[in-house]
Amino acid sequence: MAKKPDIESMRKKMISAAKAGIKSSYESEEFALIQAVNAINEIDRSHNLMFERLGEWYGIYFPEVNINNPSTLTKLVSLVTSKNGIDINEVEKIVGTNESAKDITDKMSNTIGRVMAQEERSVILTYAKLTEQMGELRETLESYINSATKRLLPNTAYITDNMVAAELLSKAGSLERLVIMPAGTIQLLGAEKALFKHIKFGSKPPKYGVLFRLPAISNARRDIRGKLARAYSAKIATALKADIITKRFIGDELKATLDKSVERITSTKPTVRKPKRQQRKYSYRKR
Amino acid sequence: MAKKPDIESMRKKMISAAKAGIKSSYESEEFALIQAVNAINEIDRSHNLMFERLGEWYGIYFPEVNINNPSTLTKLVSLVTSKNGIDINEVEKIVGTNESAKDITDKMSNTIGRVMAQEERSVILTYAKLTEQMGELRETLESYINSATKRLLPNTAYITDNMVAAELLSKAGSLERLVIMPAGTIQLLGAEKALFKHIKFGSKPPKYGVLFRLPAISNARRDIRGKLARAYSAKIATALKADIITKRFIGDELKATLDKSVERITSTKPTVRKPKRQQRKYSYRKR
Repeated sequence: MAKKPDIESMRKKMISAAKAGIKSSYESEEFALIQAVNAINEIDRSHNLMFERLGEWYGIYFPEVNINNPSTLTKLVSLVTSKNGIDINEVEKIVGTNESAKDITDKMSNTIGRVMAQEERSVILTYAKLTEQMGELRETLESYINSATKRLLPNTAYITDNMVAAELLSKAGSLERLVIMPAGTIQLLGAEKALFKHIKFGSKPPKYGVLFRLPAISNARRDIRGKLARAYSAKIATALKADIITKRFIGDELKATLDKSVERITSTKPTVRKPKRQQRKYSYRKR
Repeated sequence: MAKKPDIESMRKKMISAAKAGIKSSYESEEFALIQAVNAINEIDRSHNLMFERLGEWYGIYFPEVNINNPSTLTKLVSLVTSKNGIDINEVEKIVGTNESAKDITDKMSNTIGRVMAQEERSVILTYAKLTEQMGELRETLESYINSATKRLLPNTAYITDNMVAAELLSKAGSLERLVIMPAGTIQLLGAEKALFKHIKFGSKPPKYGVLFRLPAISNARRDIRGKLARAYSAKIATALKADIITKRFIGDELKATLDKSVERITSTKPTVRKPKRQQRKYSYRKR
């Protein structure tokens, strides 16, 4: 019976080896970063929804007020819940200028809206407070994403920006998968829906996905956006290798050559616009 | 020039009359209630999303832990952020029983997950706190909806329940529109999508919308659910007239007759199930 303890000890070794393998796959910070990126996207949506709901709700009591800034609105809701005795100085602190404070205070004290009942007041105040905190959470997440991206993807973040680099990582799923992606795949990360629409229904192929968030691309002339996205993605592919494999900072050189290609592309003459072709309607038949 | 001031004063009268008209349309509490109902539906979705994200995120650090209750999870995240020195008594306060506390503490102290960095800790704690507050906001909204529904729709709330009555109001848009709805429309409020699918593509017609939230209907046998929804909606139509027009409380009588019809319906023999017909595929051609 010399064999049994042997198997037992081998089994233990195997289990601990497996555990170590799983453990190492959890160790990298990239997964926390990916969670943060997904969280910020969800929070953006929820925050927006809450802000719009708050504006509509507050509009029952003060239909004359129309504020487009979430943080201004939440502060105003917390300050003014009745048309009597509105403190104009406090309003000024929120809206910024004396003029607009006077304007809003005037409108609010002569409102034709409903008088807020005590119970409604406490509900809407809680709602406004949470909307505000949602905005603060967004900032917390953003600052974490910024610093984590600088640690994990310094070169990529340097030639693009932090949110774009983090978003690319989140779409790819892990550093390991991101680093082996060819430039063409990077260019279309985040454009999967449009890509499959192209493949399936023959609509125009997408030219960029996440990269469209770069002002250099979204603010460029229409006819060169695709070329710019291509130039960026090629450089990003190189930057990723430096970030993940060699772990050197070569951002300055990358940026210099990238800037040169961008200049070359933007200095081309605009192509004369052809009259717009009628877009193909989706067809449920395969082409 | 005796005419000019006359026109001017008439103009003022007109404007103030118009203002009074608008004002009265804001005065009723129903609009605050509708806002609260829409808000609670949105908050439910956002809260759920945040809870799922939190679970996934916390899973990087403690993959062994799997908690299905939002409030338990948020409390646990706030308590335990490192595998060292977990206080089992505090864990017990959160999870309830001594056994499960011991189990969770054991798992967490031997976790193979990532060690939480300081920066990640502060982010995830903020996130957990907001998730918890979101749950609290939901409760605040719910208690407001309960009391407002009892004020505005006492009979309807009595024979159904508060959330269902409030949801009917929110779908109808106002008390004025709700009160003139025939029973058949009330029965299908909230089933608009299925109804138009039926009209356009010939799928099965819906039997209930919001009313399906009533346990009396959702827990009933399949073959009588439609009949029950019909009975309920007929009584609701009567209850709404009492709520909105005559403003009397006749809930007890309504409930008595409703209970009788419900009993009559539930005591029928189950119809023998026909073999399930293949459901018609959506066709983009009109039937």
